[in-house]
Amino acid sequence: MNSSLAVLVSQLPEQGDAALIISNENRRYFTGFVSSLGYLLVTRKEAYLFVDFRYAEAAKKKTVGCEVVSYTDFSGEFGSVLRQEQIHSVFLEGSAFTLNETNRIDKILSENNAESIKDDTLDKLIGKQRIIKTHDEVEKIIKAQRITEKALMKTLPLIKEGTAEKDIALELEYKMRKLGAEGVSFDLIVISGKKTSMPHGVPGENKIRPGDFITFDIGALYQGYHSDMTRTYAYGFVSEKQKTVYNTVYHAQRLGLDAVRAGVPAKDVDFAARDFIYKAGFEGCFGHSTGHGVGLEIHELPFVSSKSETVLQSGMVITVEPGIYLAEEFGVRIEDTVCVTNDGYVNLATLPKELLIL
Amino acid sequence: MNSSLAVLVSQLPEQGDAALIISNENRRYFTGFVSSLGYLLVTRKEAYLFVDFRYAEAAKKKTVGCEVVSYTDFSGEFGSVLRQEQIHSVFLEGSAFTLNETNRIDKILSENNAESIKDDTLDKLIGKQRIIKTHDEVEKIIKAQRITEKALMKTLPLIKEGTAEKDIALELEYKMRKLGAEGVSFDLIVISGKKTSMPHGVPGENKIRPGDFITFDIGALYQGYHSDMTRTYAYGFVSEKQKTVYNTVYHAQRLGLDAVRAGVPAKDVDFAARDFIYKAGFEGCFGHSTGHGVGLEIHELPFVSSKSETVLQSGMVITVEPGIYLAEEFGVRIEDTVCVTNDGYVNLATLPKELLIL
Repeated sequence: MNSSLAVLVSQLPEQGDAALIISNENRRYFTGFVSSLGYLLVTRKEAYLFVDFRYAEAAKKKTVGCEVVSYTDFSGEFGSVLRQEQIHSVFLEGSAFTLNETNRIDKILSENNAESIKDDTLDKLIGKQRIIKTHDEVEKIIKAQRITEKALMKTLPLIKEGTAEKDIALELEYKMRKLGAEGVSFDLIVISGKKTSMPHGVPGENKIRPGDFITFDIGALYQGYHSDMTRTYAYGFVSEKQKTVYNTVYHAQRLGLDAVRAGVPAKDVDFAARDFIYKAGFEGCFGHSTGHGVGLEIHELPFVSSKSETVLQSGMVITVEPGIYLAEEFGVRIEDTVCVTNDGYVNLATLPKELLIL
Repeated sequence: MNSSLAVLVSQLPEQGDAALIISNENRRYFTGFVSSLGYLLVTRKEAYLFVDFRYAEAAKKKTVGCEVVSYTDFSGEFGSVLRQEQIHSVFLEGSAFTLNETNRIDKILSENNAESIKDDTLDKLIGKQRIIKTHDEVEKIIKAQRITEKALMKTLPLIKEGTAEKDIALELEYKMRKLGAEGVSFDLIVISGKKTSMPHGVPGENKIRPGDFITFDIGALYQGYHSDMTRTYAYGFVSEKQKTVYNTVYHAQRLGLDAVRAGVPAKDVDFAARDFIYKAGFEGCFGHSTGHGVGLEIHELPFVSSKSETVLQSGMVITVEPGIYLAEEFGVRIEDTVCVTNDGYVNLATLPKELLIL
């Protein structure tokens, strides 16, 4: 059994004999093997990765610290391990098991004199383990961030009046992958003009025009790890109102960052940015939370919102990304991803945030 | 209410007052709106799409035939609609609701004197509706397929001895997107040499060498619809054994296609291809099913396997993709996507399948 599995097993409450993990990210986290389907059964003594025929050869080569079981008949192979290991109760990954998948597993379990535990115990254990990044994980996020920044720097000079948002997004993604990214962290957001008032707008045929803001919410994927950064640039010129909004977000983001430190409640980071924006007269124009964790998933623990009950700890990796969105006008968001330390944070992003007019 | 919603409502069994749909594909299918989060509540009179602040503006612009409810407090807004519409029982999408999401919704339902129905009734209804493609849907799949073929034709000339698999995959994806694809149907599979024995191998730094097979399992995404095609080409030269295996798969795929026609059980298509491969001496070397449906998802109903109970109907879109995989040697797979007709099928793929040596 490898060390990440050993940590999980050491925390497993007594009422369960085993844990069943099916999400792609958690299978990858605990086994090192990447696949789109598979079942990782972790007992107190041993871990078994069940993969179908298609993945069998690759899994046997790449999996670390657990036994690979290749199946054509899953219920037969799974049942056989349940009996052999005398498993009678299994924690399910409540964030990943669908109702249909649960019904299917419950049938196999009951045929083998076992039952499932259907709460979020296992999710919380795994979340607690994954929330603190190892040195190796932070390095991968930094690598993903460097790729993102280099790709953006190579793409900005290509933007002219009339360039379409989606062509910019495509060039950016192509450059990320040429630089070694496995892919993008999420569908890249490159939106301009009025569309910037939509926090999750989708790049389209919109052409860049002088006086537009262009929002880049972008990230690369490197060895399974995500990066996340937002920069809002202007094209040609800006109005006084655009400048005011930009600088309000710029200062709010700085205040959010200034609040980051191990021992500080995550909600204080949200408050620091939000309070400044609201007091500047933009209450109701910042409808999302200030940040979130980043790692094997683009959104993971901890959440940096007004409702968060998490206290920041050294080794957490979070975003700080306040914004102001004025419907039918424009929006601005600025985002860095940082690693929390005892003294404050290390900013994984290095690109400047002062208003840049392309 | 739009027509796809009206069809769903007309089929909803009496024991439920409403259906709650949360999967991205099904929300898109029924509302036309694309987002990564949202709740579609379909009552017998009205449909409500709940989206958070980030999507509110876009959803109101693009959603067809249902009311958009923008929330910051989901349980409040959702509960209010439940009470107003007097909803007491709600079918959940069992293929999409996780245990944790179910627990969350059940809490809101019980606070509003309602309960959920946790079986696969709703999935089956939606599956039955989506399994037959409209003319418009088939056109989108064809468009995705044309993009895939054009991109492949533009990429093949770039392949030289020493080109890395992942560089070929990247060029292919870039060209698909330049040709108008929204993205890829799945992480493109471009693998060579021994790796072709892994049905789901991942493109890597492997360099193309004379004597290699190169498997392209590729597809583009166009307006939400997927395409899926596999071609296996040789580079430089082939051995007699490679030729024998290739031609066995080639003939098996032809036999599979020949079996396709409305009224034929899907498992007969699987048998036609499989039986030929097994009788040619390759039993145990074809471990996946012969095909699957394609549409808003890359794998959807019907499944074309030995266990399938589906009878093919006109308007179904399926793949036919037998293969032979020889561990530590090589593999071959050939795949077309076809639309079932009363007389047979329309092949949505147009690229030749005879052994091609690059």
